[in-house]
Amino acid sequence: MSVSGHRPPFYLGIDLGGTNIKSGVVDDAGRPISSVSLPTEAGRGPDVGINNLAEAGRRAVAESGLDWSQIAAVGLGSPGTMDIRAGLLLDPPNLPGWDNLPIRDRLAGLLGKPTVLQNDANAAAYGEFWVGAGKGLASLVLFTLGTGVGGGIIDHGRIIEGRHSHGAECGHIIIQMDGGRLCSCGATGHLEAYASATALVKRAMEALEAEPTSSLGKRLDADDLTARAIDEEATAGDPLARRLMRETARYLAVGAVCLMHTIDPDIVLFSGGMIAAGPAFLDQIRSDIRAMAFPVPASRTRVEYAQLGGDAGFIGAAGCARQAFGKRT
Amino acid sequence: MSVSGHRPPFYLGIDLGGTNIKSGVVDDAGRPISSVSLPTEAGRGPDVGINNLAEAGRRAVAESGLDWSQIAAVGLGSPGTMDIRAGLLLDPPNLPGWDNLPIRDRLAGLLGKPTVLQNDANAAAYGEFWVGAGKGLASLVLFTLGTGVGGGIIDHGRIIEGRHSHGAECGHIIIQMDGGRLCSCGATGHLEAYASATALVKRAMEALEAEPTSSLGKRLDADDLTARAIDEEATAGDPLARRLMRETARYLAVGAVCLMHTIDPDIVLFSGGMIAAGPAFLDQIRSDIRAMAFPVPASRTRVEYAQLGGDAGFIGAAGCARQAFGKRT
Repeated sequence: MSVSGHRPPFYLGIDLGGTNIKSGVVDDAGRPISSVSLPTEAGRGPDVGINNLAEAGRRAVAESGLDWSQIAAVGLGSPGTMDIRAGLLLDPPNLPGWDNLPIRDRLAGLLGKPTVLQNDANAAAYGEFWVGAGKGLASLVLFTLGTGVGGGIIDHGRIIEGRHSHGAECGHIIIQMDGGRLCSCGATGHLEAYASATALVKRAMEALEAEPTSSLGKRLDADDLTARAIDEEATAGDPLARRLMRETARYLAVGAVCLMHTIDPDIVLFSGGMIAAGPAFLDQIRSDIRAMAFPVPASRTRVEYAQLGGDAGFIGAAGCARQAFGKRT
Repeated sequence: MSVSGHRPPFYLGIDLGGTNIKSGVVDDAGRPISSVSLPTEAGRGPDVGINNLAEAGRRAVAESGLDWSQIAAVGLGSPGTMDIRAGLLLDPPNLPGWDNLPIRDRLAGLLGKPTVLQNDANAAAYGEFWVGAGKGLASLVLFTLGTGVGGGIIDHGRIIEGRHSHGAECGHIIIQMDGGRLCSCGATGHLEAYASATALVKRAMEALEAEPTSSLGKRLDADDLTARAIDEEATAGDPLARRLMRETARYLAVGAVCLMHTIDPDIVLFSGGMIAAGPAFLDQIRSDIRAMAFPVPASRTRVEYAQLGGDAGFIGAAGCARQAFGKRT
């Protein structure tokens, strides 16, 4: 990628994950100029990890062809519980030992740039709002579908961070208060307990006990019973796999309706590995939303897959840096 | 009430209900100077109704001792489906025949003042945010508990109206997607189907079939099985009534947790007739919230009853007029 044709100022976005760090330089129009990936090495503790964050940032700038002095500010997206405004990680489940960590100021110290911290799913939502599937709109709700179900909400161009940095924990709304499934967080009945990739696999394993003839059984025997495998078997016509995907669409529609009846955004987006299930899965979600939502939002709210893929996090984090430190447009 | 000691400019707030119109003049600091109530006469159609709105406004100004020229702008809070920005009522269930009505501009024409339309529960939330239980805070979620369950959300001082004016329909989040109770809106599993005063009475009638010895049976025979009566019998020690109130608190806590995990406000408020159940009921809600919410919001989010009572609607509507047309402070 080249810097020619890009518009200053430039922002460095860094997306911290439990396994990998993704980083890139983004121009003032939200176009990525570079993109690099490094292992987080989370298990080696926060000192190593923060050095890796800084290294990922430096490499992204080097790859962009820009001079370090041309970087106006840095945005860091991170998983886990945090105090966004204080720039602190509190108790991130996927980064053991990184608790009570002033990650923003530590990183700012290493990079020598104004730095902003944001929740990773919030940052991804901001990326989609800025230059992705929500470009040009005023509000959106994003569900990130992976091991868990995360979320980000933008209203009037602002991330709903929440008073205690717990805004948009959309996987942890209660959709089945009585008799609900156990969530990874320890509570019951949460959307994540039904609709995450992990939950889909768990539901498949339970269902296989009653329907051992399903072709999912072979996947289980081959140690390949993943969300992707279930989608593939559904596409191939396996009745159990089809039912599991159908139910997953409904669970996501329930979550979407809850957000449509509280935020009522321009658009509801889904991102993450599960959107590999493709257009038919999205159409099932849409159909279930239309059946459950109030008539006006049911007919008017757009429901789409996100567009930025794995780049949403660093692009959005760069956008947060631009919003925090850039000149207002 | 007198105008002395009040701070200009002054705003007229009008709260349209299916049965009554409440109106008052409010000063720039959110203090009400007058308050009048008139029958809506909704059944006589929108022409009569809009004249009644205007008359309620004129009487409120007359009672305030202000001259009409001192009123800067008018805010109208209304129930029902609407297009807030267009100033239209679309299909309000409690105002039959008032559909597709340009109520804002019709009222503005009669009163000769800049006029803003807002959803009634949103207006009440804004009132509580401006000068009530949320004064001085940045964000709040309000649940209005009556025949139905309404809601209002303020984030960073802004009402979340939603793209299609369906923001904060907090009674219509899905808390029991499978096997849920039938809601007045026709869908199933909504919070309102569990936690409204109407739902409480319905649950009591169902439970009485299994427990006919409950003292609620006498209330039913006396045609006095109301939410208030159930609370009274609970206070008097009736086991069924106690269980019903206990369950209601839990349902409200489920709704609160869903909003705490999406909006994560400074404070969650409850208003409406059911808050007559008093401090013990509120403590039950708080206790259930603490048991279900994530640790940080569970321990830090304030949970309170609203403070403005039946005046929240017109005070908040006046506040919306101030926000729309007043000079920024």
